[in-house]
Amino acid sequence: MNLLYEGKAKKIFQDQDHLVMEFKDSLTAFNAEKRGSFPGKGQLNRDIASFLFRELERAGVQTHWKKDEGPNRMWVTPLRMIPMEVVVRNVWAGSLAKRLGRPEGDDLSQPLIELYLKDDRLGDPLLSENHIELLGLCKSHQVREMQAQALRVNTALTNIFSAVQVRLVDFKIEFGLDHENQIVLGDEISPDSCRLWDRRTSEKLDKDRFRRDLGGVDEAYLEIWRRLQNLASAPVKGD
Amino acid sequence: MNLLYEGKAKKIFQDQDHLVMEFKDSLTAFNAEKRGSFPGKGQLNRDIASFLFRELERAGVQTHWKKDEGPNRMWVTPLRMIPMEVVVRNVWAGSLAKRLGRPEGDDLSQPLIELYLKDDRLGDPLLSENHIELLGLCKSHQVREMQAQALRVNTALTNIFSAVQVRLVDFKIEFGLDHENQIVLGDEISPDSCRLWDRRTSEKLDKDRFRRDLGGVDEAYLEIWRRLQNLASAPVKGD
Repeated sequence: MNLLYEGKAKKIFQDQDHLVMEFKDSLTAFNAEKRGSFPGKGQLNRDIASFLFRELERAGVQTHWKKDEGPNRMWVTPLRMIPMEVVVRNVWAGSLAKRLGRPEGDDLSQPLIELYLKDDRLGDPLLSENHIELLGLCKSHQVREMQAQALRVNTALTNIFSAVQVRLVDFKIEFGLDHENQIVLGDEISPDSCRLWDRRTSEKLDKDRFRRDLGGVDEAYLEIWRRLQNLASAPVKGD
Repeated sequence: MNLLYEGKAKKIFQDQDHLVMEFKDSLTAFNAEKRGSFPGKGQLNRDIASFLFRELERAGVQTHWKKDEGPNRMWVTPLRMIPMEVVVRNVWAGSLAKRLGRPEGDDLSQPLIELYLKDDRLGDPLLSENHIELLGLCKSHQVREMQAQALRVNTALTNIFSAVQVRLVDFKIEFGLDHENQIVLGDEISPDSCRLWDRRTSEKLDKDRFRRDLGGVDEAYLEIWRRLQNLASAPVKGD
Protein backbone atom coordinates (compact mmCIF):
# COMPACT_ATOMS: atom_id res chain seq x y z
CA MET A 1 0.00 0.00 0.00
CA ASN A 2 1.16 3.49 -0.88
CA LEU A 3 0.95 6.15 1.87
CA LEU A 4 -0.79 9.18 0.30
CA TYR A 5 -1.15 11.38 3.37
CA GLU A 6 -0.48 11.35 7.07
CA GLY A 7 -2.45 13.71 9.27
CA LYS A 8 -2.54 14.25 13.01
CA ALA A 9 -4.80 11.27 13.75
CA LYS A 10 -5.08 9.32 10.49
CA LYS A 11 -3.14 7.95 7.54
CA ILE A 12 -4.53 7.50 4.04
CA PHE A 13 -3.16 4.72 1.82
CA GLN A 14 -3.82 4.00 -1.84
CA ASP A 15 -4.39 0.29 -2.51
CA GLN A 16 -5.11 -0.36 -6.18
CA ASP A 17 -8.50 1.28 -6.90
CA HIS A 18 -9.52 2.09 -3.33
CA LEU A 19 -8.30 4.16 -0.41
CA VAL A 20 -7.61 2.87 3.07
CA MET A 21 -8.00 5.20 6.06
CA GLU A 22 -6.02 4.13 9.11
CA PHE A 23 -6.90 5.57 12.53
CA LYS A 24 -3.85 6.28 14.70
CA ASP A 25 -3.63 6.11 18.49
CA SER A 26 -2.37 9.70 18.63
CA LEU A 27 -4.38 12.61 19.96
CA THR A 28 -3.62 16.27 19.32
CA ALA A 29 -5.21 19.57 20.31
CA PHE A 30 -4.68 23.32 19.90
CA ASN A 31 -3.36 22.98 16.36
CA ALA A 32 -1.09 20.06 17.37
CA GLU A 33 0.67 22.08 20.08
CA LYS A 34 -0.61 19.54 22.59
CA ARG A 35 0.09 15.87 21.80
CA GLY A 36 -0.86 12.59 23.41
CA SER A 37 -2.06 9.08 22.66
CA PHE A 38 -3.58 6.02 24.24
CA PRO A 39 -3.46 2.39 23.10
CA GLY A 40 -6.61 1.32 21.28
CA LYS A 41 -7.71 4.90 20.48
CA GLY A 42 -7.37 4.33 16.73
CA GLN A 43 -9.52 1.20 16.94
CA LEU A 44 -12.19 2.94 19.06
CA ASN A 45 -12.43 5.88 16.69
CA ARG A 46 -12.57 3.56 13.66
CA ASP A 47 -15.37 1.57 15.31
CA ILE A 48 -17.32 4.68 16.30
CA ALA A 49 -16.85 6.44 12.93
CA SER A 50 -17.75 3.28 11.04
CA PHE A 51 -20.91 2.80 13.13
CA LEU A 52 -21.97 6.43 12.64
CA PHE A 53 -21.24 6.44 8.89
CA ARG A 54 -23.45 3.36 8.45
CA GLU A 55 -26.21 4.99 10.48
CA LEU A 56 -25.90 8.15 8.38
CA GLU A 57 -26.13 6.14 5.15
CA ARG A 58 -29.38 4.66 6.52
CA ALA A 59 -30.57 8.23 7.16
CA GLY A 60 -29.89 9.16 3.51
CA VAL A 61 -26.50 10.89 3.87
CA GLN A 62 -23.89 9.74 1.39
CA THR A 63 -20.57 9.00 3.14
CA HIS A 64 -17.17 7.78 1.96
CA TRP A 65 -17.31 4.61 4.12
CA LYS A 66 -17.14 1.33 2.19
CA LYS A 67 -16.10 -1.35 4.67
CA ASP A 68 -13.93 -1.94 7.73
CA GLU A 69 -10.58 -3.70 7.52
CA GLY A 70 -8.61 -5.02 10.49
CA PRO A 71 -8.84 -3.32 13.86
CA ASN A 72 -8.24 0.32 12.86
CA ARG A 73 -8.77 0.77 9.12
CA MET A 74 -11.66 1.42 6.77
CA TRP A 75 -11.94 1.42 3.00
CA VAL A 76 -13.24 4.72 1.72
CA THR A 77 -14.34 6.24 -1.58
CA PRO A 78 -11.70 8.56 -3.05
CA LEU A 79 -12.82 12.18 -2.70
CA ARG A 80 -11.33 15.52 -3.68
CA MET A 81 -11.66 17.12 -0.26
CA ILE A 82 -13.07 20.64 0.05
CA PRO A 83 -10.53 22.41 2.31
CA MET A 84 -13.10 23.47 4.86
CA GLU A 85 -14.20 22.33 8.31
CA VAL A 86 -17.97 22.36 8.70
CA VAL A 87 -18.92 22.79 12.35
CA VAL A 88 -22.48 22.19 13.53
CA ARG A 89 -23.42 23.41 16.99
CA ASN A 90 -26.48 22.78 19.16
CA VAL A 91 -25.18 24.22 22.43
CA TRP A 92 -23.11 27.28 23.45
CA ALA A 93 -19.64 25.78 23.98
CA GLY A 94 -16.01 25.90 22.95
CA SER A 95 -14.72 28.66 20.67
CA LEU A 96 -18.25 29.91 19.87
CA ALA A 97 -19.04 30.58 23.53
CA LYS A 98 -15.67 32.27 24.01
CA ARG A 99 -15.85 34.35 20.80
CA LEU A 100 -19.37 35.64 21.47
CA GLY A 101 -18.99 35.91 25.25
CA ARG A 102 -21.59 33.38 26.40
CA PRO A 103 -21.31 30.80 29.19
CA GLU A 104 -21.04 27.16 28.09
CA GLY A 105 -24.05 24.88 28.35
CA ASP A 106 -27.20 26.64 27.13
CA ASP A 107 -28.96 25.24 24.05
CA LEU A 108 -28.73 27.42 20.94
CA SER A 109 -32.13 28.63 19.76
CA GLN A 110 -31.44 26.72 16.52
CA PRO A 111 -28.53 24.63 15.15
CA LEU A 112 -25.66 26.82 13.93
CA ILE A 113 -23.35 25.94 11.04
CA GLU A 114 -19.89 27.51 10.95
CA LEU A 115 -17.38 27.13 8.13
CA TYR A 116 -13.64 27.27 8.74
CA LEU A 117 -10.69 27.18 6.36
CA LYS A 118 -8.81 23.93 6.94
CA ASP A 119 -5.31 25.36 7.33
CA ASP A 120 -3.27 24.51 10.42
CA ARG A 121 -0.68 27.15 9.55
CA LEU A 122 -3.39 29.83 9.87
CA GLY A 123 -5.16 28.19 12.81
CA ASP A 124 -8.25 27.27 10.76
CA PRO A 125 -9.80 30.76 10.45
CA LEU A 126 -13.58 31.29 10.40
CA LEU A 127 -15.03 31.98 6.95
CA SER A 128 -18.14 33.74 5.72
CA GLU A 129 -19.69 32.85 2.36
CA ASN A 130 -18.01 35.96 0.95
CA HIS A 131 -14.58 34.63 1.96
CA ILE A 132 -15.37 31.24 0.39
CA GLU A 133 -16.29 32.95 -2.87
CA LEU A 134 -13.18 35.15 -2.78
CA LEU A 135 -10.87 32.21 -2.10
CA GLY A 136 -12.66 30.06 -4.70
CA LEU A 137 -12.91 27.18 -2.20
CA CYS A 138 -16.14 25.92 -3.74
CA LYS A 139 -19.21 27.19 -5.54
CA SER A 140 -22.06 28.84 -3.67
CA HIS A 141 -24.50 26.00 -4.56
CA GLN A 142 -21.97 23.61 -3.03
CA VAL A 143 -21.86 25.68 0.16
CA ARG A 144 -25.66 25.48 0.34
CA GLU A 145 -25.57 21.71 -0.31
CA MET A 146 -22.93 21.16 2.40
CA GLN A 147 -24.97 23.19 4.88
CA ALA A 148 -28.11 21.19 4.04
CA GLN A 149 -26.22 17.90 4.42
CA ALA A 150 -24.65 19.10 7.67
CA LEU A 151 -28.11 19.75 9.12
CA ARG A 152 -29.22 16.26 8.02
CA VAL A 153 -26.14 14.79 9.72
CA ASN A 154 -26.97 16.80 12.83
CA THR A 155 -30.54 15.50 13.00
CA ALA A 156 -29.42 11.89 12.57
CA LEU A 157 -26.53 12.13 15.05
CA THR A 158 -28.67 13.98 17.61
CA ASN A 159 -31.19 11.14 17.48
CA ILE A 160 -28.49 8.48 17.80
CA PHE A 161 -26.72 10.10 20.73
CA SER A 162 -29.96 11.05 22.41
CA ALA A 163 -30.91 7.36 22.39
CA VAL A 164 -27.77 6.58 24.44
CA GLN A 165 -28.25 9.48 26.88
CA VAL A 166 -25.60 11.67 25.27
CA ARG A 167 -26.06 15.35 24.40
CA LEU A 168 -24.56 16.17 20.99
CA VAL A 169 -23.14 19.61 21.76
CA ASP A 170 -21.29 20.19 18.48
CA PHE A 171 -19.21 18.39 15.87
CA LYS A 172 -16.88 19.01 12.93
CA ILE A 173 -17.25 17.27 9.57
CA GLU A 174 -15.53 17.54 6.21
CA PHE A 175 -16.91 17.00 2.73
CA GLY A 176 -15.35 16.08 -0.59
CA LEU A 177 -16.39 15.59 -4.19
CA ASP A 178 -16.57 12.11 -5.71
CA HIS A 179 -15.81 11.27 -9.35
CA GLU A 180 -19.30 12.49 -10.32
CA ASN A 181 -18.76 15.79 -8.44
CA GLN A 182 -21.31 14.76 -5.83
CA ILE A 183 -20.74 16.14 -2.34
CA VAL A 184 -19.97 13.22 -0.04
CA LEU A 185 -19.25 13.17 3.71
CA GLY A 186 -15.59 12.24 4.29
CA ASP A 187 -13.06 12.30 7.14
CA GLU A 188 -14.41 10.87 10.43
CA ILE A 189 -16.98 11.40 13.16
CA SER A 190 -15.68 10.39 16.59
CA PRO A 191 -15.04 11.78 20.10
CA ASP A 192 -12.07 13.56 18.46
CA SER A 193 -14.42 15.67 16.35
CA CYS A 194 -17.56 15.94 18.53
CA ARG A 195 -18.46 17.42 21.89
CA LEU A 196 -20.46 14.71 23.67
CA TRP A 197 -21.84 15.33 27.16
CA ASP A 198 -23.54 12.74 29.32
CA ARG A 199 -27.17 13.83 29.35
CA ARG A 200 -27.62 13.23 33.09
CA THR A 201 -24.29 14.26 34.62
CA SER A 202 -23.00 16.65 31.86
CA GLU A 203 -19.71 14.72 32.07
CA LYS A 204 -17.59 15.31 28.97
CA LEU A 205 -17.11 12.15 26.90
CA ASP A 206 -14.89 13.58 24.15
CA LYS A 207 -11.55 15.18 23.30
CA ASP A 208 -12.19 18.07 25.70
CA ARG A 209 -11.06 15.64 28.45
CA PHE A 210 -7.65 15.73 26.72
CA ARG A 211 -7.72 19.45 25.80
CA ARG A 212 -8.61 20.47 29.35
CA ASP A 213 -6.53 17.83 31.22
CA LEU A 214 -9.59 16.27 32.83
CA GLY A 215 -8.15 12.72 32.80
CA GLY A 216 -10.01 9.55 31.83
CA VAL A 217 -9.73 10.23 28.10
CA ASP A 218 -9.56 6.54 27.19
CA GLU A 219 -12.49 5.62 29.47
CA ALA A 220 -14.61 8.38 27.88
CA TYR A 221 -13.99 7.17 24.31
CA LEU A 222 -14.65 3.58 25.40
CA GLU A 223 -17.86 4.64 27.14
CA ILE A 224 -19.15 6.23 23.91
CA TRP A 225 -18.40 3.05 21.97
CA ARG A 226 -20.03 0.87 24.66
CA ARG A 227 -23.22 2.90 24.52
CA LEU A 228 -23.34 2.90 20.71
CA GLN A 229 -22.81 -0.88 20.68
CA ASN A 230 -25.77 -1.33 22.98
CA LEU A 231 -27.77 0.69 20.52
CA ALA A 232 -26.77 -1.49 17.57
CA SER A 233 -29.54 -3.99 18.38
CA ALA A 234 -32.10 -1.44 19.62
CA PRO A 235 -34.08 0.98 17.40
CA VAL A 236 -33.05 4.67 17.26
CA LYS A 237 -35.68 7.24 18.18
CA GLY A 238 -37.01 8.99 15.11
CA ASP A 239 -35.21 6.60 12.76
CA MET B 1 -27.95 69.70 24.55
CA ASN B 2 -28.24 66.33 26.22
CA LEU B 3 -25.27 63.92 25.83
CA LEU B 4 -26.75 60.59 24.69
CA TYR B 5 -23.56 58.66 24.04
CA GLU B 6 -19.81 59.12 24.13
CA GLY B 7 -17.67 56.77 22.03
CA LYS B 8 -13.94 56.59 21.42
CA ALA B 9 -13.92 59.33 18.77
CA LYS B 10 -17.37 60.92 18.84
CA LYS B 11 -20.13 62.21 21.10
CA ILE B 12 -23.82 62.17 20.24
CA PHE B 13 -26.10 64.86 21.67
CA GLN B 14 -29.87 65.15 21.55
CA ASP B 15 -31.04 68.68 20.72
CA GLN B 16 -34.81 68.91 20.55
CA ASP B 17 -35.86 66.83 17.51
CA HIS B 18 -32.43 66.26 15.98
CA LEU B 19 -29.14 64.61 16.94
CA VAL B 20 -25.75 66.31 16.92
CA MET B 21 -22.63 64.24 16.29
CA GLU B 22 -19.44 65.81 17.63
CA PHE B 23 -16.06 64.63 16.37
CA LYS B 24 -13.38 64.47 19.07
CA ASP B 25 -9.64 65.02 18.65
CA SER B 26 -8.90 61.62 20.24
CA LEU B 27 -7.58 58.65 18.32
CA THR B 28 -7.67 55.05 19.54
CA ALA B 29 -6.56 51.71 18.14
CA PHE B 30 -6.47 48.03 19.09
CA ASN B 31 -9.78 48.17 20.90
CA ALA B 32 -8.75 51.40 22.70
CA GLU B 33 -5.61 49.86 24.19
CA LYS B 34 -3.63 52.50 22.28
CA ARG B 35 -4.73 56.10 22.73
CA GLY B 36 -3.65 59.39 21.20
CA SER B 37 -4.98 62.66 19.82
CA PHE B 38 -4.01 65.69 17.78
CA PRO B 39 -5.53 69.17 17.72
CA GLY B 40 -7.89 69.67 14.80
CA LYS B 41 -8.42 65.95 14.21
CA GLY B 42 -12.13 66.18 15.08
CA GLN B 43 -12.60 69.05 12.65
CA LEU B 44 -10.73 67.25 9.84
CA ASN B 45 -12.77 64.07 10.30
CA ARG B 46 -16.01 66.06 10.42
CA ASP B 47 -15.06 67.87 7.21
CA ILE B 48 -14.01 64.66 5.43
CA ALA B 49 -17.04 62.67 6.62
CA SER B 50 -19.40 65.50 5.73
CA PHE B 51 -17.88 65.81 2.24
CA LEU B 52 -18.11 62.05 1.64
CA PHE B 53 -21.67 61.77 2.97
CA ARG B 54 -22.78 64.52 0.57
CA GLU B 55 -21.02 62.78 -2.33
CA LEU B 56 -22.69 59.48 -1.37
CA GLU B 57 -26.12 61.14 -1.27
CA ARG B 58 -25.44 62.36 -4.82
CA ALA B 59 -24.58 58.76 -5.74
CA GLY B 60 -27.95 57.57 -4.40
CA VAL B 61 -26.89 56.28 -0.97
CA GLN B 62 -29.05 57.47 1.89
CA THR B 63 -26.93 58.77 4.80
CA HIS B 64 -27.72 60.23 8.20
CA TRP B 65 -25.98 63.58 7.41
CA LYS B 66 -28.24 66.64 7.58
CA LYS B 67 -25.93 69.64 7.92
CA ASP B 68 -22.68 70.77 9.49
CA GLU B 69 -22.57 72.87 12.64
CA GLY B 70 -19.50 74.71 13.94
CA PRO B 71 -16.04 73.29 13.36
CA ASN B 72 -16.52 69.66 14.48
CA ARG B 73 -20.22 68.83 14.61
CA MET B 74 -22.90 67.62 12.23
CA TRP B 75 -26.64 67.24 12.55
CA VAL B 76 -27.72 63.69 11.81
CA THR B 77 -30.95 61.76 11.41
CA PRO B 78 -31.72 59.63 14.48
CA LEU B 79 -31.15 55.94 13.66
CA ARG B 80 -31.50 52.71 15.61
CA MET B 81 -28.00 51.42 14.89
CA ILE B 82 -27.51 47.80 13.80
CA PRO B 83 -24.70 46.56 16.09
CA MET B 84 -22.46 45.45 13.26
CA GLU B 85 -19.38 46.80 11.52
CA VAL B 86 -19.56 46.37 7.75
CA VAL B 87 -16.05 46.19 6.26
CA VAL B 88 -15.51 46.49 2.51
CA ARG B 89 -12.12 45.51 1.15
CA ASN B 90 -10.52 46.00 -2.26
CA VAL B 91 -6.94 45.04 -1.38
CA TRP B 92 -5.30 42.35 0.78
CA ALA B 93 -4.41 44.30 3.96
CA GLY B 94 -4.87 44.47 7.72
CA SER B 95 -6.60 41.68 9.60
CA LEU B 96 -7.78 39.96 6.39
CA ALA B 97 -4.22 39.55 5.09
CA LYS B 98 -3.06 38.32 8.49
CA ARG B 99 -5.98 35.94 9.04
CA LEU B 100 -5.70 34.32 5.59
CA GLY B 101 -1.90 34.46 5.39
CA ARG B 102 -1.47 36.79 2.40
CA PRO B 103 1.02 39.64 1.99
CA GLU B 104 -0.42 43.16 2.06
CA GLY B 105 -0.87 45.09 -1.17
CA ASP B 106 -2.36 42.88 -3.89
CA ASP B 107 -5.79 43.75 -5.25
CA LEU B 108 -8.58 41.33 -4.30
CA SER B 109 -10.11 39.63 -7.34
CA GLN B 110 -13.41 41.27 -6.31
CA PRO B 111 -14.55 43.53 -3.45
CA LEU B 112 -15.07 41.59 -0.22
CA ILE B 113 -17.66 42.43 2.43
CA GLU B 114 -17.06 41.28 5.99
CA LEU B 115 -19.48 41.67 8.88
CA TYR B 116 -18.31 42.02 12.47
CA LEU B 117 -20.21 42.20 15.73
CA LYS B 118 -19.72 45.69 17.18
CA ASP B 119 -18.66 44.71 20.69
CA ASP B 120 -15.41 46.09 22.12
CA ARG B 121 -15.57 43.69 25.06
CA LEU B 122 -15.34 40.76 22.59
CA GLY B 123 -12.90 42.47 20.22
CA ASP B 124 -15.50 42.82 17.43
CA PRO B 125 -15.64 39.17 16.31
CA LEU B 126 -16.19 38.20 12.65
CA LEU B 127 -19.73 37.02 11.86
CA SER B 128 -21.20 34.80 9.18
CA GLU B 129 -24.82 35.18 8.11
CA ASN B 130 -25.61 32.15 10.29
CA HIS B 131 -24.25 33.97 13.36
CA ILE B 132 -26.29 37.07 12.52
CA GLU B 133 -29.44 34.96 12.30
CA LEU B 134 -28.63 33.14 15.56
CA LEU B 135 -27.96 36.39 17.44
CA GLY B 136 -31.02 38.05 15.88
CA LEU B 137 -28.93 41.13 14.97
CA CYS B 138 -31.08 41.86 11.92
CA LYS B 139 -33.18 40.08 9.32
CA SER B 140 -31.58 38.30 6.36
CA HIS B 141 -33.13 40.74 3.85
CA GLN B 142 -31.53 43.56 5.86
CA VAL B 143 -28.14 41.81 5.64
CA ARG B 144 -28.56 41.60 1.86
CA GLU B 145 -29.62 45.26 1.70
CA MET B 146 -26.62 46.37 3.79
CA GLN B 147 -24.26 44.38 1.57
CA ALA B 148 -25.79 45.93 -1.57
CA GLN B 149 -25.50 49.43 -0.10
CA ALA B 150 -21.93 48.73 1.04
CA LEU B 151 -20.97 47.85 -2.54
CA ARG B 152 -22.61 51.05 -3.78
CA VAL B 153 -20.65 53.04 -1.19
CA ASN B 154 -17.49 51.24 -2.29
CA THR B 155 -18.01 52.15 -5.96
CA ALA B 156 -18.68 55.80 -5.14
CA LEU B 157 -15.77 56.13 -2.68
CA THR B 158 -13.37 54.30 -5.01
CA ASN B 159 -14.22 56.82 -7.75
CA ILE B 160 -13.79 59.79 -5.41
CA PHE B 161 -10.47 58.66 -3.98
CA SER B 162 -9.19 57.51 -7.35
CA ALA B 163 -9.76 61.06 -8.65
CA VAL B 164 -7.39 62.37 -5.96
CA GLN B 165 -4.72 59.70 -6.54
CA VAL B 166 -5.66 57.67 -3.46
CA ARG B 167 -6.17 53.91 -3.43
CA LEU B 168 -9.19 52.94 -1.32
CA VAL B 169 -7.83 49.76 0.30
CA ASP B 170 -10.71 49.09 2.70
CA PHE B 171 -13.15 50.84 4.99
CA LYS B 172 -15.61 50.22 7.80
CA ILE B 173 -19.16 51.58 7.83
CA GLU B 174 -22.19 51.18 10.06
CA PHE B 175 -25.87 51.24 9.23
CA GLY B 176 -29.00 51.99 11.20
CA LEU B 177 -32.75 52.01 10.73
CA ASP B 178 -34.66 55.27 10.46
CA HIS B 179 -38.22 55.85 11.71
CA GLU B 180 -39.56 54.15 8.55
CA ASN B 181 -37.26 51.12 9.11
CA GLN B 182 -35.19 52.10 6.08
CA ILE B 183 -31.52 51.15 6.22
CA VAL B 184 -29.46 54.35 6.32
CA LEU B 185 -25.70 54.84 6.41
CA GLY B 186 -24.66 56.22 9.80
CA ASP B 187 -21.49 56.74 11.85
CA GLU B 188 -18.62 58.31 9.85
CA ILE B 189 -16.27 57.76 6.93
CA SER B 190 -12.82 59.23 7.56
CA PRO B 191 -9.14 58.27 7.75
CA ASP B 192 -10.08 56.68 11.10
CA SER B 193 -12.27 54.13 9.35
CA CYS B 194 -10.58 53.72 5.93
CA ARG B 195 -7.24 52.48 4.65
CA LEU B 196 -6.11 55.11 2.14
CA TRP B 197 -2.82 54.66 0.28
CA ASP B 198 -1.24 57.27 -2.00
CA ARG B 199 -1.65 55.75 -5.46
CA ARG B 200 1.88 56.65 -6.58
CA THR B 201 4.01 56.16 -3.44
CA SER B 202 1.76 53.70 -1.51
CA GLU B 203 2.24 55.97 1.51
CA LYS B 204 -0.39 55.35 4.15
CA LEU B 205 -2.73 58.33 4.66
CA ASP B 206 -4.92 56.90 7.43
CA LYS B 207 -5.07 55.62 11.00
CA ASP B 208 -2.48 52.91 10.26
CA ARG B 209 0.11 55.71 10.71
CA PHE B 210 -1.07 55.83 14.34
CA ARG B 211 -1.57 52.07 14.78
CA ARG B 212 1.91 51.30 13.44
CA ASP B 213 3.75 54.33 14.91
CA LEU B 214 4.70 55.69 11.49
CA GLY B 215 4.50 59.34 12.56
CA GLY B 216 2.89 62.16 10.58
CA VAL B 217 -0.64 61.16 11.54
CA ASP B 218 -1.93 64.75 11.48
CA GLU B 219 -0.22 65.53 8.12
CA ALA B 220 -1.81 62.42 6.57
CA TYR B 221 -5.35 63.35 7.68
CA LEU B 222 -4.80 66.92 6.49
CA GLU B 223 -3.45 65.68 3.14
CA ILE B 224 -6.64 63.68 2.56
CA TRP B 225 -8.79 66.69 3.32
CA ARG B 226 -6.64 68.95 1.06
CA ARG B 227 -7.03 66.55 -1.85
CA LEU B 228 -10.79 66.17 -1.35
CA GLN B 229 -11.17 69.96 -1.19
CA ASN B 230 -9.39 70.29 -4.52
CA LEU B 231 -11.89 67.82 -5.89
CA ALA B 232 -14.89 69.80 -4.63
CA SER B 233 -14.83 72.05 -7.69
CA ALA B 234 -13.74 69.34 -10.19
CA PRO B 235 -15.97 66.51 -11.47
CA VAL B 236 -15.48 62.98 -10.11
CA LYS B 237 -14.75 60.22 -12.62
CA GLY B 238 -17.79 58.02 -13.17
CA ASP B 239 -20.01 60.45 -11.29
